Amino acid sequence: MQLAARRITALQERLRPLMDFLGHSEYARRSGDPDVADFVLGNPQEMPLQGLVDAVQHHAVPQNKNWFAYAFHNHASAEVVARSLGASTGLPFEADDVLFAPGTFGGLATALRGLVDPGDEVIFISPPWFFYESMIEVLGATPVRVKLQAPRFRLDANAIRAAITPRTRAVLVNSPQNPTGHVYTREELNALADVLNAASSEAAARQKPPVVLISDESYNRVLFDGRTFVSPAVAYPHTFVLYTYGKQLLAPGERIGYIAMSPRIEGRAELRESLRFSQIVGGWQIPNNTLMRAIPDLEAISIDVGAIQRRRDRLHAELTRMGYEVMCPEATFYMMVRSPMADEWAFVDRLAQHNVFVGPGAIFEMPGHFRISMTASDEMVTRALPGFKAAIASARAR
Amino acid sequence: MQLAARRITALQERLRPLMDFLGHSEYARRSGDPDVADFVLGNPQEMPLQGLVDAVQHHAVPQNKNWFAYAFHNHASAEVVARSLGASTGLPFEADDVLFAPGTFGGLATALRGLVDPGDEVIFISPPWFFYESMIEVLGATPVRVKLQAPRFRLDANAIRAAITPRTRAVLVNSPQNPTGHVYTREELNALADVLNAASSEAAARQKPPVVLISDESYNRVLFDGRTFVSPAVAYPHTFVLYTYGKQLLAPGERIGYIAMSPRIEGRAELRESLRFSQIVGGWQIPNNTLMRAIPDLEAISIDVGAIQRRRDRLHAELTRMGYEVMCPEATFYMMVRSPMADEWAFVDRLAQHNVFVGPGAIFEMPGHFRISMTASDEMVTRALPGFKAAIASARAR
Repeated sequence: MQLAARRITALQERLRPLMDFLGHSEYARRSGDPDVADFVLGNPQEMPLQGLVDAVQHHAVPQNKNWFAYAFHNHASAEVVARSLGASTGLPFEADDVLFAPGTFGGLATALRGLVDPGDEVIFISPPWFFYESMIEVLGATPVRVKLQAPRFRLDANAIRAAITPRTRAVLVNSPQNPTGHVYTREELNALADVLNAASSEAAARQKPPVVLISDESYNRVLFDGRTFVSPAVAYPHTFVLYTYGKQLLAPGERIGYIAMSPRIEGRAELRESLRFSQIVGGWQIPNNTLMRAIPDLEAISIDVGAIQRRRDRLHAELTRMGYEVMCPEATFYMMVRSPMADEWAFVDRLAQHNVFVGPGAIFEMPGHFRISMTASDEMVTRALPGFKAAIASARAR
Repeated sequence: MQLAARRITALQERLRPLMDFLGHSEYARRSGDPDVADFVLGNPQEMPLQGLVDAVQHHAVPQNKNWFAYAFHNHASAEVVARSLGASTGLPFEADDVLFAPGTFGGLATALRGLVDPGDEVIFISPPWFFYESMIEVLGATPVRVKLQAPRFRLDANAIRAAITPRTRAVLVNSPQNPTGHVYTREELNALADVLNAASSEAAARQKPPVVLISDESYNRVLFDGRTFVSPAVAYPHTFVLYTYGKQLLAPGERIGYIAMSPRIEGRAELRESLRFSQIVGGWQIPNNTLMRAIPDLEAISIDVGAIQRRRDRLHAELTRMGYEVMCPEATFYMMVRSPMADEWAFVDRLAQHNVFVGPGAIFEMPGHFRISMTASDEMVTRALPGFKAAIASARAR
């Protein structure tokens, strides 16, 4: 007699390979061992940034009686975010259109809950982040998958056009993209905007609201080779920007990010209230006061992205030399590698025998690949290289 | 052309009196003024506890590379909670059955999402906390209201029995109860348990899971007159305890609390995973690492509940002397008072003219009353008493 909701257990069942890998696998048992090289998650493998510690400590000191009172918002911090987005996009973002969220995770839940009714469709892109599909479906909406094509995994505006129906309420994109490491170009975004503008015009003709573009930009400051990031908000007006400081600070356990509505969305005053209401009835999906107050400090600090780029270059060169087929990422923490064995789970196990832990591609809808998180330390890379070499050799020797 | 979901805007519309009062009223405009006596929310009106500041600062200092990594849980802190619950209930709570939540708000969302499917019914008690009904309904479940009777607002097991149907998945109770200040007695809880046990037996006969009792115990450490708290978990086996440190610390802007499953629930191992999954797909409804680590410290500190009791006694005596009809609370931050005018909104406005702000009873489903939060400072009480006196005099002079 199952106590849990059927809706939850059905989603759990679908994500069982991921949840078992994270919770019950050899990885789960051994990830903390000192001899393990851990490339699985975008998790820190070195000590945290002192600037984050300083910011938390500083903003925990109360300056008035309201320091730890209920707070929906922090206007001064929202001004800083609006200015930052304004500078990067050229759009006049407003502080009142910034809602703080406990990471992109919480921001996405709030945004989806504020937009979708049961039966509405939300398009997401595959290979996707782990939880997009479940987060759409748990709200009673229908996730619609658009698969991008190897080897470049470029944003496919035609495939999105084909997936749009009168029930489409939102399209969810992720750039820079986890796990491919691709940053959508202005041309890709313009093609997407053409499709969405057309769909929104058709919706308007039916007295329906425009399709909303939800832009998960969690990695927009983890860019390599001097790239600049172009937000989808620049290309399409009806855009929500989702951001988390968890990547820039490599501190995903401190939950702070935001939803920012493009200043080009009409009817934003009503939408602000609805999103605020979504935050509340979803379970007060608003960060701690301490972290909301810390935003002006957090905006200014970052991990050393150059070090991640050097790690990418080293891994790319070394793994390629060993015979691996590596996708060289333009951004993000992640590098996808083709598995030398068709069954990447078996190859992931083989690497694990060498104390090297990577993510099986199946959990990113990229079977036949594995994912390396470049948040591993340089020392872990050094320790792992012989294991990578031995594993591909043994795979080929079969 | 409305961009927000209809589900959200319909719930917003129903809660418009509350949301307008909190967001757009004279209270919203003036609550920060130094001449205002603010009795509206359970918010701090004095400087925060130094112990909370110390705990946050202490636990923000990283001891290892995982300090700010993704964390589902903190086992050491969960052990402390399990021991504390064990001591207060006599039940062998297990650390693995404690899930940390960003306050009761987040814990309730996680628990409900983990239990209900669309169409399931959840019974809640009126007068209720503001958001119970909406939080049930946004998940597609059906909230079923059981109204308690004035003047004592005792838990009415017969009324709950009458409300139970084969679709009832959970009953949500709040003891000590906001806003009545009533602590359910062992007798009231036993009568409830008899009803729920009977319903669960009937469910078992239909091969259905038992009815879950969700016990919101946010105020279980804000008790007056030497009372001890009896958790509903003591009376009924299939109970989830929800708790937040936000009341005990009078710091609702720092989001930390928990869901604890009673050790008498069968099938807890599966349920743990489902609740964990609910936390994730709901948007990572897990507190900051810093606050999860701080739990052993937070368990040991509290505001001065004796000071709140003395404020209760003073307000009760003074308001009664003025002619107000006051419900004397046994616990919580709140005191309900009958409005001298049938339209309590008009009387709330009249008090506001004297710089005294209280909560209109309608937003607690207690029209004809108003709510006083005893978290106001003693100095605010002193300043407010002439206003309370003048307002009742002018109401009677009409």
